[in-house]
Amino acid sequence: MFMAATATQAALSNGARTIPAQLALSSEAGTLKRSVMRELLKLTARADVISLAGGLPASELLPLAQLQECIETVLRRDGTRALQYSPMIEPLRRWICDTMRARGVACEPEQVHITNGAQQGLTILSRLFLNPDQPAVVEAITFTGIQQVTAGRGAVMRTVPTDLATGVDVDALEEAFHRTPRPRLAVVIPDFHNPLGVSLTLEKRQRIAELAARYRVPLVEDDPYSALRFDGQSLPPIKAFDEAGAVFYIGSFSKMLAPSLRLGWIVAPAELASQVTVLRESIDLESSTLIQRAVSLFVEQGLMAGHLARFNAANRCRRDVLFDALAHYLGDRASWTRPEGGLFVWLTLREEIDTWALLEDAIAAGVAFVPGAAFALNGGSHNTLRLNFSNVQPELIPVAVERLAQVIKQKGK
Amino acid sequence: MFMAATATQAALSNGARTIPAQLALSSEAGTLKRSVMRELLKLTARADVISLAGGLPASELLPLAQLQECIETVLRRDGTRALQYSPMIEPLRRWICDTMRARGVACEPEQVHITNGAQQGLTILSRLFLNPDQPAVVEAITFTGIQQVTAGRGAVMRTVPTDLATGVDVDALEEAFHRTPRPRLAVVIPDFHNPLGVSLTLEKRQRIAELAARYRVPLVEDDPYSALRFDGQSLPPIKAFDEAGAVFYIGSFSKMLAPSLRLGWIVAPAELASQVTVLRESIDLESSTLIQRAVSLFVEQGLMAGHLARFNAANRCRRDVLFDALAHYLGDRASWTRPEGGLFVWLTLREEIDTWALLEDAIAAGVAFVPGAAFALNGGSHNTLRLNFSNVQPELIPVAVERLAQVIKQKGK
Repeated sequence: MFMAATATQAALSNGARTIPAQLALSSEAGTLKRSVMRELLKLTARADVISLAGGLPASELLPLAQLQECIETVLRRDGTRALQYSPMIEPLRRWICDTMRARGVACEPEQVHITNGAQQGLTILSRLFLNPDQPAVVEAITFTGIQQVTAGRGAVMRTVPTDLATGVDVDALEEAFHRTPRPRLAVVIPDFHNPLGVSLTLEKRQRIAELAARYRVPLVEDDPYSALRFDGQSLPPIKAFDEAGAVFYIGSFSKMLAPSLRLGWIVAPAELASQVTVLRESIDLESSTLIQRAVSLFVEQGLMAGHLARFNAANRCRRDVLFDALAHYLGDRASWTRPEGGLFVWLTLREEIDTWALLEDAIAAGVAFVPGAAFALNGGSHNTLRLNFSNVQPELIPVAVERLAQVIKQKGK
Repeated sequence: MFMAATATQAALSNGARTIPAQLALSSEAGTLKRSVMRELLKLTARADVISLAGGLPASELLPLAQLQECIETVLRRDGTRALQYSPMIEPLRRWICDTMRARGVACEPEQVHITNGAQQGLTILSRLFLNPDQPAVVEAITFTGIQQVTAGRGAVMRTVPTDLATGVDVDALEEAFHRTPRPRLAVVIPDFHNPLGVSLTLEKRQRIAELAARYRVPLVEDDPYSALRFDGQSLPPIKAFDEAGAVFYIGSFSKMLAPSLRLGWIVAPAELASQVTVLRESIDLESSTLIQRAVSLFVEQGLMAGHLARFNAANRCRRDVLFDALAHYLGDRASWTRPEGGLFVWLTLREEIDTWALLEDAIAAGVAFVPGAAFALNGGSHNTLRLNFSNVQPELIPVAVERLAQVIKQKGK
């Protein structure tokens, strides 16, 4: 996956795996790799580095006072019931269900399973459908957490390309579904793709749901970002076109409300909802009833719409500042995606530039990004990189891009 | 596992598994069974039923005001840092490490991994070591969550009996370790066993650590209960005798502080600490930094000792009331374990009584328990049951036992 051996890259790789000789690891443990992103977060924590490497929502825009009030109210109102084991909080499931319905998904609260964020949703669904050595279909360039629950679990990977303007290549998807043995799981990101920033067209959403049904492939729609839309038109999720019960929608409060809530959800076909619950209970029983109650109160009070309006306005500003800075400093040396929301922009540099090698110079110059190769399952993408615009002060964004442009120009000499 | 088909039991079993014909489940999903305990909790939620079936700490004894203050202080002090993604909270790891050292375990904070409760610790360690179709060793009668992460994951089970006075049969354990193929994982409960109430003797702890090292079997010590000691002498965990790095200790704040914190920990051998982190990140990234910070503040302020003193005094009272009631109403019809702490007492009735059938009559009479067979991997234990004393008002305990004694006497006629 790595294109050149650099010091930075070595620091990010798995290091020496000193395992006591006497204990044999599972095959799963043997295949899992440390998340490059999470290691990179540590490297870029230096105060003099402006990090466009993260995947965090803007800290100063998180609704601290409102969440604080919700937690305090819940503890005062519900007392120790908020500290106990508990079934899922029904008003929260209903709000999620209503929100999904408003987006065109026919569902009932019983189909909503509360998870610890989207990553746990991916874990649950991969364990529900995927055995080691069975085929799984994912985008060739995709979020590392999706790679961990498929390739990391020993699946035989079939990758499909993603168009930077319209989303995953649906013809390639059909080809991957058609081959025998039939894939046991497929995962796509519908909106504001991580790392590519692209969203699926309406027609592709419809076709993907049809393909999942026709080829009987459980289709996981991993959607942590769709609420972060700044402009353009919101499209229904793939799940809205799922008449056969083959699509599993994953949502998350991490990026739209706060990561430390560790709260997300799965909308499963009704027939499999109880299987999702059983599997989840075997992993860690349940999500915190305290946090569920607090988030439920937040949404019941109608605070989400106002929060998202403020949040997205601020994030749009950051994205626009990034677009302007890219045009100003890198207009002739890079191309990039134009996401209508989310957290990320994907840059493609000239073919001769390797972004792993570039990263070292960039950190020395005071700017960090994630090399695109970190997201590429089949290698390649050596001249690409992912930029995050959500968790940087807007006034620092042009400074960061200028620094980036300087090291790119040096490489390009 | 179930000895007789009754209406109650049918309601507790897996029900009709209507799976859409077109989606193939993983082999893991096919083997997992719904938790009998969690289903039973719903059945016994009726107001006229006194439930001794749960596994919950006493609601009214949870330190609500103190936890509330810790959460408020953290949000005020740390602001949005308490809402973001975050590495593990170091003062919490250090406190856990110090607590483990005070119990004789030589460890460093780097060996402490914060989990979402003990069940997630079991999940992580089973995925670290266990492949499907490989042997795992567990107690023949044990917590259903341990069964889910071993048998439920497709392991070939080797079970060992547990002595009701001294804990797991260590000779049987050695026999199970000695057989080929070598087991890839073993799980034992050291203190206040769920469901048996028994604690391991010191000599057995030492021998178990030696066996794990000699036979190179990763030994998981699942210990959610040891802080709940009412009397008798606290013994070092098995991990204290682990010179070879073969023992993995699992602790939890769920039973000693509050379940909805969803917080526990693993102490792993230093060589495998980073593997534990990588595997955990692939499951759901991390535990809530908000909750970690709040619990960290709770323990840094030195609140744990006082809380546990009050908590254990109240729980001891409940246990003693249960012991007295059992002696008074069932002295000639049952025998039971004498735990020095924890949550549970294990009853053995006359051979001719089936406790699944008894449960139906008991619920009709206004008392609930868990039939012992629900914990028995190999069947059997039909005439046993588990009683919880921690989450019942003390004045209701004699009423519950009198009701239980009446239905037992009717069965015994």
